[in-house]
Amino acid sequence: MKTDIEIARESELKRIQDVGQSIGVNPDELIPYGKYMAKVPLSEMDTEGINKSNLILVTSITPTKAGIGKTTVSIGLALGLNKIGKKAVVALREPSLGPCFGMKGGAAGGGYAQVLPMENINLHFTGDFHAITSAHNTISALFDNYIYQNRSLENGIKEILWKRVLDVNDRSLRYINTGLRGSANGVPQESGFDITPASEIMAILCLATDIEDLRRRIENILLGYRYDGSMFTVKDLGVAGAITVLLKDALNPNLVQTTENTAAFIHGGPFANIAHGCNSVIATKMAMSYGDYVITEAGFGADLGAEKFFDIKCRKSGLQPKLTVVVATAQGLKMHGGVAIDEIKTKNIEGIQKGLDNLAKHVENIKSYGQSIVVAFNKYATDDAEELAIVEQYCKDNHIGFAINNAFIEGGEGAKALAEVVANTIATNPSKPLQFPYQDEDTISVKIENITKKIYGANNVEFSSAAKKKLAQLRNTAMDKFPVCIAKTQYSFSADATAYGVAKDFDIVINDIVINRGAEFIVAIAGDIMRMPGLPKSPQALRIDLVDGLIEGLS
Amino acid sequence: MKTDIEIARESELKRIQDVGQSIGVNPDELIPYGKYMAKVPLSEMDTEGINKSNLILVTSITPTKAGIGKTTVSIGLALGLNKIGKKAVVALREPSLGPCFGMKGGAAGGGYAQVLPMENINLHFTGDFHAITSAHNTISALFDNYIYQNRSLENGIKEILWKRVLDVNDRSLRYINTGLRGSANGVPQESGFDITPASEIMAILCLATDIEDLRRRIENILLGYRYDGSMFTVKDLGVAGAITVLLKDALNPNLVQTTENTAAFIHGGPFANIAHGCNSVIATKMAMSYGDYVITEAGFGADLGAEKFFDIKCRKSGLQPKLTVVVATAQGLKMHGGVAIDEIKTKNIEGIQKGLDNLAKHVENIKSYGQSIVVAFNKYATDDAEELAIVEQYCKDNHIGFAINNAFIEGGEGAKALAEVVANTIATNPSKPLQFPYQDEDTISVKIENITKKIYGANNVEFSSAAKKKLAQLRNTAMDKFPVCIAKTQYSFSADATAYGVAKDFDIVINDIVINRGAEFIVAIAGDIMRMPGLPKSPQALRIDLVDGLIEGLS
Repeated sequence: MKTDIEIARESELKRIQDVGQSIGVNPDELIPYGKYMAKVPLSEMDTEGINKSNLILVTSITPTKAGIGKTTVSIGLALGLNKIGKKAVVALREPSLGPCFGMKGGAAGGGYAQVLPMENINLHFTGDFHAITSAHNTISALFDNYIYQNRSLENGIKEILWKRVLDVNDRSLRYINTGLRGSANGVPQESGFDITPASEIMAILCLATDIEDLRRRIENILLGYRYDGSMFTVKDLGVAGAITVLLKDALNPNLVQTTENTAAFIHGGPFANIAHGCNSVIATKMAMSYGDYVITEAGFGADLGAEKFFDIKCRKSGLQPKLTVVVATAQGLKMHGGVAIDEIKTKNIEGIQKGLDNLAKHVENIKSYGQSIVVAFNKYATDDAEELAIVEQYCKDNHIGFAINNAFIEGGEGAKALAEVVANTIATNPSKPLQFPYQDEDTISVKIENITKKIYGANNVEFSSAAKKKLAQLRNTAMDKFPVCIAKTQYSFSADATAYGVAKDFDIVINDIVINRGAEFIVAIAGDIMRMPGLPKSPQALRIDLVDGLIEGLS
Repeated sequence: MKTDIEIARESELKRIQDVGQSIGVNPDELIPYGKYMAKVPLSEMDTEGINKSNLILVTSITPTKAGIGKTTVSIGLALGLNKIGKKAVVALREPSLGPCFGMKGGAAGGGYAQVLPMENINLHFTGDFHAITSAHNTISALFDNYIYQNRSLENGIKEILWKRVLDVNDRSLRYINTGLRGSANGVPQESGFDITPASEIMAILCLATDIEDLRRRIENILLGYRYDGSMFTVKDLGVAGAITVLLKDALNPNLVQTTENTAAFIHGGPFANIAHGCNSVIATKMAMSYGDYVITEAGFGADLGAEKFFDIKCRKSGLQPKLTVVVATAQGLKMHGGVAIDEIKTKNIEGIQKGLDNLAKHVENIKSYGQSIVVAFNKYATDDAEELAIVEQYCKDNHIGFAINNAFIEGGEGAKALAEVVANTIATNPSKPLQFPYQDEDTISVKIENITKKIYGANNVEFSSAAKKKLAQLRNTAMDKFPVCIAKTQYSFSADATAYGVAKDFDIVINDIVINRGAEFIVAIAGDIMRMPGLPKSPQALRIDLVDGLIEGLS
């Protein structure tokens, strides 16, 4: 089979104005970025469309390092729905440059279920992440300058909560000391960089409902505490306007097209392990303005992405998905069934059977939210028919919708069966209104307990002394009512990245608490998850090149 | 008079395709970024046009903190030339976000001589600086990862020469320690951030002739030395292809329009104090492909910008300017004539007369390159007729072309006289082929001596022990043949920012040497110039805001 980039290159792209027009977006209103990408202004949002659109979430079992193919299934399902005569639009997350040059390569789907132009989407795209990086670090510079210029201030800054971000995998920047070599160079401090997707600005952009809400949230960002214990925010710094200006264009969602020329919105937020990991509320609603069916994804396994999608994004935006698709692969199930990683491409019936426990726990969790479920078996060329039959039979026995996704190899044609099952389930048995594992009124520690016990299946949750201190600070403030975003490894229900399957009899340790007052959620750091990834020994950058004007090595 | 941003808002913009077409660029070849900005692919360059075009450099006397208005005069002159029936295009530098949010505000001209859309140009524009930041820091991450992954390597990296960049004024990032808190977080190192315009990648982008040359230069970047003394380059790191891919789009020059809808190219490189400070060779040549007269600028006073324009950009690209315009203002001359800064708006004949020494030294320097010269008196509303007459008489007495630029208030109409003088001088008395103050074969230290003595007027140049060590490393290598880029304060001929006028009887100390092997020049750090600026007590960010969807506080 051809590589992703070969398929991407051979695809005949439509002008983005024509793509917009195909779903009813006025082409004159588009803000083009080249011939095949555009931003859509917020004025094009349509409440009537949003209200009658069917939102579908795509999530997955606990993924392998290579991923389970959620983006490919999301795109494939949209293509399949369009093939069976429905008007479907896909709303995805933007890739980060970190993993693109690091371990994983790009993140624009695969095979015949891609979003295009994949080279641009995987690289600078329309500059959203750069705008977020710039806004975040401009706050850092202005805040450090405030501390520097006011260092004789009596009630100055005692505790600094704000760090910096870059969209790169750079472990050396996790912990740094700044302001060194004399007083002309600032005030010496401990600082560090997270990767841009973990920026609070990213979360704000993804949760804001409009430009005023964006500005309000930026004002609310908590930068630190003064000596008298009072909060010091971006509003106190006096630069919310300037930062809003830097994000004005980035707030508009991006329109591109699939390998079958159908419309796709791509906007904001990857990394459901260290952030909330959903695309923007605005892009989802923009897609719903024009699509009768809108397919969106949430990162990594359902314990991370789907939990945050429901508990943060849907809770706060009022979105009500009609159905959740859980993606499973034979390779992923075998890994959870105890098969060694380099053996998961080989047939192993026992491995598949054991691995179903992982699927079962995710299905149980998603059902607890009141969601209707379809399991999508994402097909690989190496898959065995008997293995597949086991998964199908399991779903049948447990009354769970099931279909095969073969869009990677066949495009929309290969996802028609999945589309039929999804459309029928929505028509006959849509999700109930969302039921959450915790309520707004619960304290932050109760919220963390409920997620870790109900969703992850932990026996106990422990808090480090640093976490306890921060939780005490939050108690009896409005911030105690925020939802919780747990940062945790994507490779296990537990915080132990090597515990595949359904990790049993484990405890979770919350090592730190990060306040995202502007994003309006509290981040709890579980185990030793890093908010700035590192590069592997042989990074993907070694294989990316420009050959005769064409990009190699992105996938 | 209206503010810059009010004038900008009231201007009726043409579609960028129409602007391109007005000078002969095929509109179908443009890569649009919104309705009013576009990138022009390198395939649209035309050698015949380049060969017959008249290149004009705009430089100035030593500037005040508010600047002398070079960009405004550059745009004004293009407007004036168009008014008198010539086909003129302006080729400028892109603004940096650092000063935009710091001291200076924007950098897109002023009054009725602006480039538009000024808000976009001053903010993210088409993402070039973000691409450069990203490429630079991706190299940093990959290099640090190489050191980390190969820390047991026998012939590993002994000396690290590569830092990081951000397009922000942040003094706290000048000197940092990275890789702290244990071996999972990299190898502890001293590092630091320069502002993006000082990135070697910026210089490479501005000096590259095409994508192959860009890639060759990226390969050549010197990252450090191994324990055996051998060089370690980006080629050795194996990622020149990946970095080229990140810069592929940024290499295309940007087309926008002036307040009078004429074409303007804006691409690369501000900061002639800490970098070579010219726009890109590619953009200059693209402008020359379509304009009979192309006006370009070089940053700060002629000691910095013009010297680097001639000695680096022209020497290496073969460009031969037909004329140099030296911008002077009454306020600037008075400052150099010893008038206190808060008095320079008041009439002071003696101050003007004394300040002419600064103009005279710049004129003498530019003449030494064989350039024909016109002095442009950049008019402010507060200027006095008698002061102006003194400058005019001085030029007459010394047989220097002279004209007033009043484009700030009147647009092109106010620069017709300047345009006539410039066009006539080019017709009757164009520049001779460039004569340089040093030759390629001179050693780096001789090159530095020649610039500091001949151009700055220093008595002596001293080298710190760190600089001496680096110079010794360069001796007998191909790098000793590179031109020199001196980083020095923009406020004086000397390295003392407070010595206005023609600083006499001064020595220059070269504190450090930075090797830009990919850009193919050697940076000499004179005095205590910082390659990462700081923010003032009251940064411009406090005054930037979004009000009713319109940006305030940019100028």
